[in-house]
Amino acid sequence: MLTFYNELHAQHRGRHEFFRGALVPCFEKPERADSVLAELGRRGLGRIVTPQGVPLMSLERIHTPRYLHFLRTAWSEWIALDPANAGRDALPSVWPVRSLRHDIEPDNFTARMGLYSMDSGTPLTAGTWTAAKTGADCAVNAAHALRLGERGAFVLSRPPGHHAGKDFFGGYCFLNNAALAAQHMLDDGARKVAILDIDYHHGNGTQSIFYDRSDVLFISIHADPRSDYPFYLGHADERGEGAGHGFNMNLPLAQGSSAHAWFAALETACIRLGSFGADALVVSLGVDTFAGDPLSHFALQSADYLKIGARLAYLNLPTAFIFEGGYAVKELGVNVVNVLEGFETAL
Amino acid sequence: MLTFYNELHAQHRGRHEFFRGALVPCFEKPERADSVLAELGRRGLGRIVTPQGVPLMSLERIHTPRYLHFLRTAWSEWIALDPANAGRDALPSVWPVRSLRHDIEPDNFTARMGLYSMDSGTPLTAGTWTAAKTGADCAVNAAHALRLGERGAFVLSRPPGHHAGKDFFGGYCFLNNAALAAQHMLDDGARKVAILDIDYHHGNGTQSIFYDRSDVLFISIHADPRSDYPFYLGHADERGEGAGHGFNMNLPLAQGSSAHAWFAALETACIRLGSFGADALVVSLGVDTFAGDPLSHFALQSADYLKIGARLAYLNLPTAFIFEGGYAVKELGVNVVNVLEGFETAL
Ligand SMILES: [Zn+2]
Ligand SMILES: [Zn+2]
Repeated sequence: MLTFYNELHAQHRGRHEFFRGALVPCFEKPERADSVLAELGRRGLGRIVTPQGVPLMSLERIHTPRYLHFLRTAWSEWIALDPANAGRDALPSVWPVRSLRHDIEPDNFTARMGLYSMDSGTPLTAGTWTAAKTGADCAVNAAHALRLGERGAFVLSRPPGHHAGKDFFGGYCFLNNAALAAQHMLDDGARKVAILDIDYHHGNGTQSIFYDRSDVLFISIHADPRSDYPFYLGHADERGEGAGHGFNMNLPLAQGSSAHAWFAALETACIRLGSFGADALVVSLGVDTFAGDPLSHFALQSADYLKIGARLAYLNLPTAFIFEGGYAVKELGVNVVNVLEGFETAL
Repeated sequence: MLTFYNELHAQHRGRHEFFRGALVPCFEKPERADSVLAELGRRGLGRIVTPQGVPLMSLERIHTPRYLHFLRTAWSEWIALDPANAGRDALPSVWPVRSLRHDIEPDNFTARMGLYSMDSGTPLTAGTWTAAKTGADCAVNAAHALRLGERGAFVLSRPPGHHAGKDFFGGYCFLNNAALAAQHMLDDGARKVAILDIDYHHGNGTQSIFYDRSDVLFISIHADPRSDYPFYLGHADERGEGAGHGFNMNLPLAQGSSAHAWFAALETACIRLGSFGADALVVSLGVDTFAGDPLSHFALQSADYLKIGARLAYLNLPTAFIFEGGYAVKELGVNVVNVLEGFETAL
C-alpha cells in the first residue's frame, strides 16, 4: 500500500475552537497525523511518498473558484484587518441562514468568512491553505495511483475533508479530499466511483457534493445527526435527488450503539456497494468510532479495525483510504493502520 | 405621545459577543435604554406607561411556535448542560448553511441554538426571554393604542427587534417588535400598514417576514450590506416576491454618506409611503446613523433627528416608534427624543 503523506500538515495548527460560548483548545491537532505516521513506520506497510502538486483546476472540479479564492487569501486579509490578528485564529461570527442571501459576496471579510462556513469550531490559521492544499494534492495523487494500477493507497493528511462542502468549511475541514479523489478517477476514465464514509460523523460535505449524481455512490455510517455533528444532515431519508436518487445511503446509529450494530450497518453498506458496480472505492477513514474517542459515543475496539479492513478488501476494488477524524491520539495510529493492514492481508 | 416602557429590559444584559475570533464586551447594553428614559423625563413628552402582557398567540402571528419554544426554554437547557454555564452567556457555534437541512429540529442544544440564529454576536442570557417578551408586549400595546386613536406611541425597550426573523435571532434581536406592532394593527382591522426602518443597519428580519405580502410596505434606509451588518440582505434589487412584489424598498447608502444623501433617501421613502395609502406607520427607530456612533459610518447630527421627526409627522399617519439600535450611549437619549419631539411639534 502506497501512503501519500502531507509533510506540511503541521502548518495547520489551530489554537482554539469556539464551543458553548467559549474558546476551547482544538481537538484536531498535528499529533493526530504524527501518531499514524509513527505506527506506519513501525509496521512497514509500504512506501511513504510525498505528493506532486496538482493545479488549482483540479480543486475547482469540486469547489467553487470563489470559495477557493477566499481560502487562499483569507489569512493575509485577516492580518490586514489588524496586525494583532497574527496571534489569533480567524473564526466566523455571522452567517446567512434562511431568508438571507448567498448569491452576492460581501466586501466585508467577516461576512465572507461567514458566507463560506458552517461552524466556529474550525479555526483558519496562517498555514491552513498550505496544509489543506497539500492534503488535496495527496488525495488526487492517491486517486491517480489507483488508476495506474495500485490496489490500495492511503492519504495521510490533515486537516480532514468530509465536512467541507463545495463552498464552505466546517467540522475541521476545508477541502474535501474524498470528493477530490473520486472526481479525479472519474475525470481519468473511471465510469463509477463509490465513497464509503465510516467516520463517526456524517460526511455532509461529500454527500452534498454528489447528491444529484449517479456516477458517485455515497454511503455513510455515522451517529444520528439529531444528537451529533453535523446535526443538519445525515438522516436515513436522504437518498439523493434528480439523477442521483438512489445513490445516497445514510446509515445513522444511535449514540452508544454496539460494535455488533456497527458491523451490521457495514454489511448493509457492502451489499449496496456490490450492486453498484464501482470501478474504485474511496473510504473516508475516521476512527472516532473507537470506544475511547473523547468526542464520540460508539464502541469499536482496536481489533475491530483489522476486521473493517479485511471486509473492505473482499469488495475487490482499487481502494483509496482518506484519513478523516479520530481524536484518541494515543490509539489513533494503531486503529488507522489496523484498517490498512486488515485490507492488505485479507486476500 | 404615549411611551410604553419595558421596565424589565435590564434583565437582558449580555456579557460578551463573539467577534473576529474573540469574546468582546457587548455594545447592546442596559445603559442605552436608561439614556433615553432619562431624556424623556427631562423633556416631559407625555405619559410613560407599563404594558399589559399579551398572550403568546400574539407572538405566534410573526414567529414560529418552535422558535418561541426554544427562546423560552433555552436558558434552563443551557444551565442543564453544565451548572457552570450560569456564569456564561449562551452563543451559537454551528449553523445550517447551503445544503444543510432546517426542517428537522435536532435534539442537541447547540444544534438547535445554531438552527435559530444568524450570528454569535447576540448573547442569550438568563433574562433574555423576560426582557424580549416584555418588549413585545410594549410593541403590541403601542399598536393597540394607535388603533384606539393615539396619534403617536413610542416603544422604549431592549433588546431591539428588526434583525430577528420569523425563526431566528441575531444582530442583538430576538423578537421582531416592529413586525409584531404592524401585524397587531392588521389583525385589529387596519387594511395596510407601512414600516419605515431608519436604523443604520438593514432590517433584514422585518423585510423577510413581510416579503411576500402586499398589506405591509417595508422601506429601509441603511448602510450597504456589502460593507455592513447584516451583510446578506438589504440590496436595492430586493423588491418583494409574489403578492409582495413592489412592496419592499431598500435604499442602501455607502459608508460615509452625508446627511444630505440620507435625507434625500428619506424623501424617496416618504414619496413611496404617500402612494401606498397606509392606515398606520411603524418606524424602526435606530439612531446609529449618528455621526458619533461607535459601530457606524453615517453623518447625522443631533439636530437632524428633530428634522426626521418633523418630516414623518407630515405623513399624517398614526405612528408607532420602536427603539432599535444606537450605541453612542451619551447622545442616545437626545437623538431619540429629538425624533419624538420633532414629530410632536411639527404640525
Ligand atoms: Zn468525525
Ligand atoms: Zn443598527
